[in-house]
Amino acid sequence: MTIHALHSGLDTIWVVLTAAMILLMEGGFALLEAGFVRSKNSVNIIMKVFADITIGTLCYFLLGFGLMFGSDLFGIAGSNGFMLNGDLSHLKLSISTDTFWLFQGAFVIAVISIVSGAVAERVNFRAYLLYVVLMTALIYPIAGHWVWGGGWLGKLGFQDFAGSAVIHALGGFSALAAAILIGPRKGKFMPNNTSSIALPSNLPLASVGAFLLWFGWFGFNAGSTLTATDVRIGHIAIVTMLSAAAGGAATLIYTLFRYGRSDAPSVINGSLAGLVGITAGCAFVSDRAAILIGIVSGLFMMAATNWLEAKRIDDPVGAFPVHAVSGIWGTIAVGLFASDGGLLTGGGWHLLGIQLLGLTVLCIWGFVLTWFALKLINKWVPIRSTDEEEEVGLDVSYHGIMAIHTSPEFINVDDYFIENPRENPN
Amino acid sequence: MTIHALHSGLDTIWVVLTAAMILLMEGGFALLEAGFVRSKNSVNIIMKVFADITIGTLCYFLLGFGLMFGSDLFGIAGSNGFMLNGDLSHLKLSISTDTFWLFQGAFVIAVISIVSGAVAERVNFRAYLLYVVLMTALIYPIAGHWVWGGGWLGKLGFQDFAGSAVIHALGGFSALAAAILIGPRKGKFMPNNTSSIALPSNLPLASVGAFLLWFGWFGFNAGSTLTATDVRIGHIAIVTMLSAAAGGAATLIYTLFRYGRSDAPSVINGSLAGLVGITAGCAFVSDRAAILIGIVSGLFMMAATNWLEAKRIDDPVGAFPVHAVSGIWGTIAVGLFASDGGLLTGGGWHLLGIQLLGLTVLCIWGFVLTWFALKLINKWVPIRSTDEEEEVGLDVSYHGIMAIHTSPEFINVDDYFIENPRENPN
Amino acid sequence: MTIHALHSGLDTIWVVLTAAMILLMEGGFALLEAGFVRSKNSVNIIMKVFADITIGTLCYFLLGFGLMFGSDLFGIAGSNGFMLNGDLSHLKLSISTDTFWLFQGAFVIAVISIVSGAVAERVNFRAYLLYVVLMTALIYPIAGHWVWGGGWLGKLGFQDFAGSAVIHALGGFSALAAAILIGPRKGKFMPNNTSSIALPSNLPLASVGAFLLWFGWFGFNAGSTLTATDVRIGHIAIVTMLSAAAGGAATLIYTLFRYGRSDAPSVINGSLAGLVGITAGCAFVSDRAAILIGIVSGLFMMAATNWLEAKRIDDPVGAFPVHAVSGIWGTIAVGLFASDGGLLTGGGWHLLGIQLLGLTVLCIWGFVLTWFALKLINKWVPIRSTDEEEEVGLDVSYHGIMAIHTSPEFINVDDYFIENPRENPN
Repeated sequence: MTIHALHSGLDTIWVVLTAAMILLMEGGFALLEAGFVRSKNSVNIIMKVFADITIGTLCYFLLGFGLMFGSDLFGIAGSNGFMLNGDLSHLKLSISTDTFWLFQGAFVIAVISIVSGAVAERVNFRAYLLYVVLMTALIYPIAGHWVWGGGWLGKLGFQDFAGSAVIHALGGFSALAAAILIGPRKGKFMPNNTSSIALPSNLPLASVGAFLLWFGWFGFNAGSTLTATDVRIGHIAIVTMLSAAAGGAATLIYTLFRYGRSDAPSVINGSLAGLVGITAGCAFVSDRAAILIGIVSGLFMMAATNWLEAKRIDDPVGAFPVHAVSGIWGTIAVGLFASDGGLLTGGGWHLLGIQLLGLTVLCIWGFVLTWFALKLINKWVPIRSTDEEEEVGLDVSYHGIMAIHTSPEFINVDDYFIENPRENPN
Repeated sequence: MTIHALHSGLDTIWVVLTAAMILLMEGGFALLEAGFVRSKNSVNIIMKVFADITIGTLCYFLLGFGLMFGSDLFGIAGSNGFMLNGDLSHLKLSISTDTFWLFQGAFVIAVISIVSGAVAERVNFRAYLLYVVLMTALIYPIAGHWVWGGGWLGKLGFQDFAGSAVIHALGGFSALAAAILIGPRKGKFMPNNTSSIALPSNLPLASVGAFLLWFGWFGFNAGSTLTATDVRIGHIAIVTMLSAAAGGAATLIYTLFRYGRSDAPSVINGSLAGLVGITAGCAFVSDRAAILIGIVSGLFMMAATNWLEAKRIDDPVGAFPVHAVSGIWGTIAVGLFASDGGLLTGGGWHLLGIQLLGLTVLCIWGFVLTWFALKLINKWVPIRSTDEEEEVGLDVSYHGIMAIHTSPEFINVDDYFIENPRENPN
Repeated sequence: MTIHALHSGLDTIWVVLTAAMILLMEGGFALLEAGFVRSKNSVNIIMKVFADITIGTLCYFLLGFGLMFGSDLFGIAGSNGFMLNGDLSHLKLSISTDTFWLFQGAFVIAVISIVSGAVAERVNFRAYLLYVVLMTALIYPIAGHWVWGGGWLGKLGFQDFAGSAVIHALGGFSALAAAILIGPRKGKFMPNNTSSIALPSNLPLASVGAFLLWFGWFGFNAGSTLTATDVRIGHIAIVTMLSAAAGGAATLIYTLFRYGRSDAPSVINGSLAGLVGITAGCAFVSDRAAILIGIVSGLFMMAATNWLEAKRIDDPVGAFPVHAVSGIWGTIAVGLFASDGGLLTGGGWHLLGIQLLGLTVLCIWGFVLTWFALKLINKWVPIRSTDEEEEVGLDVSYHGIMAIHTSPEFINVDDYFIENPRENPN
């Protein structure tokens, strides 16, 4: 056994294990969202996450990965590596391309899952499936190429270690576009300028989701080193923990004093906001900066939630406040606190300027492409559920089943597998 | 620190971490099954999984492991290693026997957990406990010896990398035998040749189970290398992902077009079928073959579910369609697609023939031994619940408790710990 | 790449991955406890765990870690390392201090989470937050210093590999003090000397928690080597598994024969008791001793549960029986069975004496400090909920929300974010 083979094995298991952790985050997304939405839409949101994993993985294999990591064409997109074919030696990996693919495949599923939350409870399921294809095969991979695949933003010096911008801000602005275009759930906003809240169907379930996400985030951030001998791994892990803790603590204490009670959904989302916020800078900022990043992420998340309410934009699980806002803040925070080049750590304005440029481009890309993608899909399949489907609940409308069945009775199998359940919602 | 010590440490943590992931799959089995069955039997199925883990682990330690991995006697069974005693140097492990045991112990629990689903909602709990002993101490270990322990099937060249045949087909045929012998749940099949479905009590819970299983499967397949320097690890992980995604996508799209809706239990089981299907060939087949294996696994699972209904065999959570059918297909697929020896990859009929022989033997072994084991147990403890126990629900009948208690009231402790709860089911 | 760098990378990923597993145990604590308590207090207990993770992590970073692992002052406490500042070379780590911190931070959260269960359903949430600060910044770190940080108990030869005493016995006796001081839930004990039980709100959810805890425990015990090249890792993992299995099997069989049914909460807690019991000795005792330790842990847990009932002490989720009693037994078991120094393995009375001394000190420390901490807090914030808060449920009283909302209706957002929800409990 040579040192080289040992090193290669070590890196491989590190990336495979962290990729598996990231894939478990899909369970986290599914349960967090299922717990936050109304019970009549829980199965649908879980099925959307299954669509992300199953269809998204295949699309990324067929097309997305090549566009993201194939040989660079003019800084814009990759040009080979589709179905893992072709020469990928330009990636200069210490691990196999298979291993690298698995990790990147876990990332793309995370992006699309962010959007799934924002369109919860009223998106047409078939339309969503088509959007999954466009997002995982085209929208995210091209933007990803710019930053991580050898494209122009990376060459400019844009810094986004594990994806506050590429994953979360892009995903969050895609979520915003989708939420605006599809419109609010019926009953969310009243004519008299008041808004209302659908209480979470199952908070313990949502918290299972949050814990799985938190666990997976260690894989997300620390695994992004792609090598186990990166000396920053311990640091990445600790700042990930500190920022998440700070985000959760900030919202816990803020809601306690502001509203006289610690608001559970806010604390859950505050912790997640802290995780999103540190994702760009986890390899670059200090422990103390991480705590500050987390606190600000949590509080910005609260403010953005109120802003959405004021703007009458309906984002049922807080995808925009958690992912877009904290993602933006986290990317800017690199420009402020990066030990090498941060404005407040003596590095001047250069890095901050690049961060702002990259953010602007990525957020616009996500928003505009999603807008047009959904417009395009809408010509073929209406992107919005019918009033009746929404009223009955998407679980029965699209899946012919409810999340919870307490009755111990059997039903006739022919009543279950019916040709068109929407005509017979029971 | 020598390279050898480093290598040994690397292999050890790889196997320990993947073994822990496989053990977490027990949580997956428990929740998947608890979510799929009726609420009045949820606690019972979780307790069956606890019996698998606790009693199964001890039986495998006392007897099973030695029969499976002890010094080979005539190709039939191992003869030492009981309680990890004796000389096990013939295993030629790069890891300690303790570490190896942990991984194998996680496997045996998976086999018995497959059966637990097929007998859900009507098996006598005491009889099940006895069956756990026979399965984990005798039935699986002897068959396992034939393939992985130095026995005759392995010597013939039978290829089953992580257990599509040894774990899943054997477990699935054991499940079939048990389901037939114990008979259908009351109310499942009507005299007028119609069948019916008990709606899943809690789909979000079942999906937690599916995500835990999916996560653990990376440990199951990639960990089966037993060494972190196996260059196939990245490949194993990616084909595991692709096959699962293909299985889930196939059922999602199939049920969408066939029934006008994406059926959630089918998608969950389709993904699991894809995972089962790739388990034999994950180290031997290409990415594209993996996608094909997954698609076929998902569709065969659907067909087998319908076949069971037509044959009036009651398998409440789909243990046979998911594990036996996909396990068979996955084992055959090695004979078709293995890069070394597959029929369709230029290797001729030899490997395929051995695969078919091995499959036949393992399926018959599982079916027949389980049949006789349950017949034997039935002489002492009836394997089937009484009508009244089944009607009341196994949770109250065998565990004196229900899965969900929404009442905030206290009950007298003497009413809880009563001598025989079956007489006082409340 | 040098061997040294490779070794360092290997140790780093081992500790980071196992630390992430331990942090996932917080999800386990939250769900186990949420499932065991009444539904009206589920959110509150999850929020307590969030407080443990978020506020506890920050307090340990600011103060606790330095007290525990800073340069030793007179064997009593550490004196630097606050916010990871100062020279920590005396720790002689093969991993970075960041990595080491992450692992230790995961431990401190476990200690406080033990207490959260014992005070469930009637502690004032603001008072609990203050207690989190004291526990994670002072009480546990100082005791931890004595054993693991270079303090007097460690110097005496006290053996506690992964914390049966430092984590579980100390945490369990703190839980006992808190449970006694706060008093039983209203309705738990009746005047006529009978006691009663609040049935668990959701056993499947509790079992998710148990499986996450079991999974994380492999990280807890095996990760405590802090190096991947420790040849004991495989052994630690297998004895962890065997003891957990034995604890669960013992309670499963005991309740089956004693009460005519396998009691689900007892089996869950029996498995956890087995895990607690082996935590001190996992690196020191044999496989067979581990099975014995597990069986005794399970049975002692049952006995201690009955003892608490008889003493009219209310510990809703069994924190004292599981953690304190098994923790004590596990620490004593090291003195009995340690391959080097155990009484029954030919080592004489010396080690056993030190174990008993250390246990006594740690249990008293936990009990007394928690007692005074809560007395102190009580002067400022009442530690006990008001009768009305307890009656309504802590979820609505402290968090203005319920765990489960089945209604699909929207409510006005101004009714949700109200200034003082306790005045408007709906």
